[in-house]
Amino acid sequence: MSLDPTALPLNELIGLVAALLTTLSFLPQALLTLRTRDVSGISLSMYSAFTLGVGLWLVYGLTLGAWPVIIANALTLALAASILGMKLWFGRRPA
Amino acid sequence: MSLDPTALPLNELIGLVAALLTTLSFLPQALLTLRTRDVSGISLSMYSAFTLGVGLWLVYGLTLGAWPVIIANALTLALAASILGMKLWFGRRPA
Repeated sequence: MSLDPTALPLNELIGLVAALLTTLSFLPQALLTLRTRDVSGISLSMYSAFTLGVGLWLVYGLTLGAWPVIIANALTLALAASILGMKLWFGRRPA
Repeated sequence: MSLDPTALPLNELIGLVAALLTTLSFLPQALLTLRTRDVSGISLSMYSAFTLGVGLWLVYGLTLGAWPVIIANALTLALAASILGMKLWFGRRPA
């Protein structure tokens, strides 16, 4: 499997860039939340459903042995789960 | 194409549920942001990159004629773009 992007057909290149963007886009959110602890505007329902959904995409990728799906969703799962964890931790009522 | 979920093999069912969760999970975030206008904790970089990425997934689906990819990403694009729009609109500095 050649990892030379220029060797990829155009639509595969579009899929690769799409996967990189939708996966790595959660990194700036995780860093912002870690830095600011500002979670009031972040939806707990969204990150609960999204994290579960990405976890299922990972299982789906494993059943197919599809490495691009496995790698993209393992990364997204780690990032989404960290945002969910920070939402729960920083968002809890002071005792 | 039968839409009877019970007729689907298990891994296709997992993929269907994953797609529904990751797509619809943006709805509670959009509704929360619309209701609270609280965008300070939402990352502009995330939603810019994510919206672009989902747009590219939509193009990718169109090049393949893959209806599940087209429908899931068209919905996600609408939701992500609305959150991005609210982040820009509610987040702008008062004049």
